[in-house]
Amino acid sequence: MKVIDGGVTAAKGFQAACCEANIKYENRTDMAMVYSAKPCVCAGTFTSNVVKAACVQWDQKIVYSGDPMQAVVVNSGIANACTGKEGFDACEATAKAVEKELGIPYSNVAVASTGVIGMQLPVEKLVNGVAMMSKTLDDSKEAGTAAAKAIMTTDTIHKEIAVTFEISGKTVTLGGMSKGSGMIHPNMCTMLGFLTTDLAIEKNLLQEALSDVIKDTFNMITVDGDTSTNDTVLLMANGLAGNETITAKNEDYQIFAEALRFICEFLAKKMAGDGEGATKLFEAKVVNAKSKEDARTLSRAIVGSNLSKAAIYGCDANFGRFLCAMGYSGAQFDQNDVELFFESKAGRLQVFDKGTPIVFDEELAVKILEASEVTIYVDMHEGEAQATAWGCDLTYDYVKINADYRS
Amino acid sequence: MKVIDGGVTAAKGFQAACCEANIKYENRTDMAMVYSAKPCVCAGTFTSNVVKAACVQWDQKIVYSGDPMQAVVVNSGIANACTGKEGFDACEATAKAVEKELGIPYSNVAVASTGVIGMQLPVEKLVNGVAMMSKTLDDSKEAGTAAAKAIMTTDTIHKEIAVTFEISGKTVTLGGMSKGSGMIHPNMCTMLGFLTTDLAIEKNLLQEALSDVIKDTFNMITVDGDTSTNDTVLLMANGLAGNETITAKNEDYQIFAEALRFICEFLAKKMAGDGEGATKLFEAKVVNAKSKEDARTLSRAIVGSNLSKAAIYGCDANFGRFLCAMGYSGAQFDQNDVELFFESKAGRLQVFDKGTPIVFDEELAVKILEASEVTIYVDMHEGEAQATAWGCDLTYDYVKINADYRS
Repeated sequence: MKVIDGGVTAAKGFQAACCEANIKYENRTDMAMVYSAKPCVCAGTFTSNVVKAACVQWDQKIVYSGDPMQAVVVNSGIANACTGKEGFDACEATAKAVEKELGIPYSNVAVASTGVIGMQLPVEKLVNGVAMMSKTLDDSKEAGTAAAKAIMTTDTIHKEIAVTFEISGKTVTLGGMSKGSGMIHPNMCTMLGFLTTDLAIEKNLLQEALSDVIKDTFNMITVDGDTSTNDTVLLMANGLAGNETITAKNEDYQIFAEALRFICEFLAKKMAGDGEGATKLFEAKVVNAKSKEDARTLSRAIVGSNLSKAAIYGCDANFGRFLCAMGYSGAQFDQNDVELFFESKAGRLQVFDKGTPIVFDEELAVKILEASEVTIYVDMHEGEAQATAWGCDLTYDYVKINADYRS
Repeated sequence: MKVIDGGVTAAKGFQAACCEANIKYENRTDMAMVYSAKPCVCAGTFTSNVVKAACVQWDQKIVYSGDPMQAVVVNSGIANACTGKEGFDACEATAKAVEKELGIPYSNVAVASTGVIGMQLPVEKLVNGVAMMSKTLDDSKEAGTAAAKAIMTTDTIHKEIAVTFEISGKTVTLGGMSKGSGMIHPNMCTMLGFLTTDLAIEKNLLQEALSDVIKDTFNMITVDGDTSTNDTVLLMANGLAGNETITAKNEDYQIFAEALRFICEFLAKKMAGDGEGATKLFEAKVVNAKSKEDARTLSRAIVGSNLSKAAIYGCDANFGRFLCAMGYSGAQFDQNDVELFFESKAGRLQVFDKGTPIVFDEELAVKILEASEVTIYVDMHEGEAQATAWGCDLTYDYVKINADYRS
C-alpha cells in the first residue's frame, strides 16, 4: 500500500466540483459534488441518532435498496435536520437537478448536509449550485482538494487522503475526504465522509468492509459527546481498476480492508485533532481488557470526559479524572488491576499502579502533556483485548465557537 | 410544611463544627463534622462509578450493615479516591479519632471526601481536625452554615435548607446541606449531601424514601457528564421529635417523603445553577412521554449536551441542538410528534411544531434566553409521563476552572 497525493478524485473515473451557492453564508464555497463516470456499488453508515436529517433518510434509501450510486451532492450551510416534509423535498429537488444536468437517474444521487439544524434549505440556490458544479466537474487533484474544503464548517483544516494498492496484478486506488469538528461523538461516525475507489467488489462485501472498519476508526473519535443528526459515510466503488471483482473474503478483500482501515483511521484522527477549539490530539489506548467491547468503552470514556479534556488542555497530570471516567463508562473492572501511563514524544510516565497512585515527576508530566499529541495508556491486566480512541482537549474556544454558532 | 432558616443543625439533637485543617490548601475551612447526640437510623445513596472512593466504601459498610450512624466527618481538600489500602486506613483513622474524642463507636462514624483524586490524605491533619471540631460542636444555625461552607470546593455559594412539618401532632424538622459543582452527573447523586432529621422512622423506610426521592432530584442534575467517584448522600434520623415511629408507608410517611423531596429538589437545583463556571440554571421539562424512564432520559440528555449548554450560555435559540440531544439519548420517538418551547420569566415561545421548525421572533427568543433561569419545555405527545432535569450553561470559566484544578 502506498500513500499518494490526492483525495476523492484519485481513483479512476471520479470527478469533483464545488461552488459558492450562498446557502447560509456569503463568500465561501459551500457546496461540493462528487461524480463517477460509471455507476458505483455503494456502502454507507449513518448516524444512530433517532432524529435523522432528511438527507440521511434519503441516502439510506439508496444504500439499503441496492441501487447504484453515481453522484453525491453536499452543502455545508444548513443541516436539513428537523425540517419535516419540506426537508425531504429539498433532497429530491437536489437529486433531480443532477438528473437534469448530468442525465443520470435522480434515484442514484446521494445528498449530504452539515450546518444549522432546524432551518429549511433554499432549494433554488441548491439547484443553481448543482448547475454550476455540473459544468466544472474535474478529475484533477485540485478539484478533490477544493471539494474537501467546501464541505468544511468549523473545521480549521481540510481532510483528504488517497492510497494505492495491488489487487490481482491491478493497481487500485482508494481516496477520501471528510469533515467534522463539532457534534462529534462515536456512534456510527458522527461526521461526513466520502470515500471513492475504482475497485471492483460486490456490494455486500463493500458494506461489510466499511461497517467493520468504522467500528475501530470513525466510531472511536469524540469531540463533544453530541452525536449528530447528520452523520454519514458513503463509499463508492466503480470497478474501473479492472481487477477481478471481489466476491469473497479472500486475500484481495483483506488487502482492500487494510487500505480502507488506514484511510479511515487517518481521517478519524485528523477530525479528532481538529475538533472545535482543539489544541491537541488526545488518544486513549486501553490494552489487556476483558473484551474488545470493554476496551472500546473504556478508551472512549477517557477521551470523552470533559474533565479529562480540560486537564489535557491545561497540561494538568490529574490522572484521577481518567480513572473516574473509566469507572462510570459502564465497563466493570477492579481499580486494583489497573496501570496508567502518560505518553507523548516527550516521554512516558507511570502515574497509577494497581490501585495506588505513584509519586511522579511533575515536571516530566507537564512536558509530556505539552506535546501536540498526548496518549493515556491503560493496562487493565484482565484479558487480551485492546482499543484506541481519539479526541481532543476542551478549550475556551470550544465554548466560544458553540455559544453563538448560528450567527 | 414550612421552610425555616437553617440547615443540618435545625433538627433536634444535631450539632456541627468545622475547622481549618490545611488538608490541601491553607487558610480555608476544609473540614466539617455533623454529630447527633443520639445514635441515628441512617440511609444513604452512593455513586454508581465502578471506581469508588475509599470513603464511599467505608460509608456503604455502615449504611448496608444496619448499624446506627452518629457522626459524619467531611474534608473538602482531597477526594481519597484511587488511593488503595492507605486510603481506606485514612477513613478508619478519622473514625477512630472521633471515637477517642466523643466516645462513640468508630463503626458509627461516616466519612466523606471531595477534592483531588489520586492523592493520599494527610492522616495527622485529619486527626487534629477531628480533635479541634469535637471541642466546638454547636447546635446553632451559624454552626450549620459554617459546616455547609466548609464542604465547598469550587462551589460559589453554600447550599442549605430546613423545613418543619407535623407528624401525629409533633413538629418534625428536616434539614440538609450539600456541595457539588464539577464532576456532577446524574447517576446516583454526584455530589455530597448530608440530611438530618429528628423524625422517628424505621431504617428500611428511611432508605426507601431517600432512594425514591433521589431519582427525581439529585439524579436529575448534571453539570458536566462526569459521574464522580465520591458521590454520597447520607440521611440521619435520630427520633428526637418524639413522633410515633413510622413503620409503614402511611400518611405520616407521605408527609415526610414530601418534605424530603422538597429539600432534595431545592439542593439539587442550587447545585445545578451553581455548576462550575455557570451563569444560569438550565431546566428541561419533558411532558407527555411514553414512560417515566423516557421522560427522565430525554430531559437529562437536553441539559447534558455540551452543545445545548453552550447555546444557552450564548442565548442562541439553536433549538435543533435540543432535538439532536433527545435523538441520541437512547429514547425512541418520532420527531413528527414533538413540540418544543423556550420559557423563562421573560415569556414563552414555541420553536418546533411536530416535525417542522417555526419561524419565530428572534428578539423575543434572546430575551427569554437571557433570563437567569431558562426552561426548555418539550411536549412528546405520546403518553402521560413527565420529568424535569436541571443543569447549567457551559462557559469559558468551566474550562478555566478545570484546566488547572489541582494547582
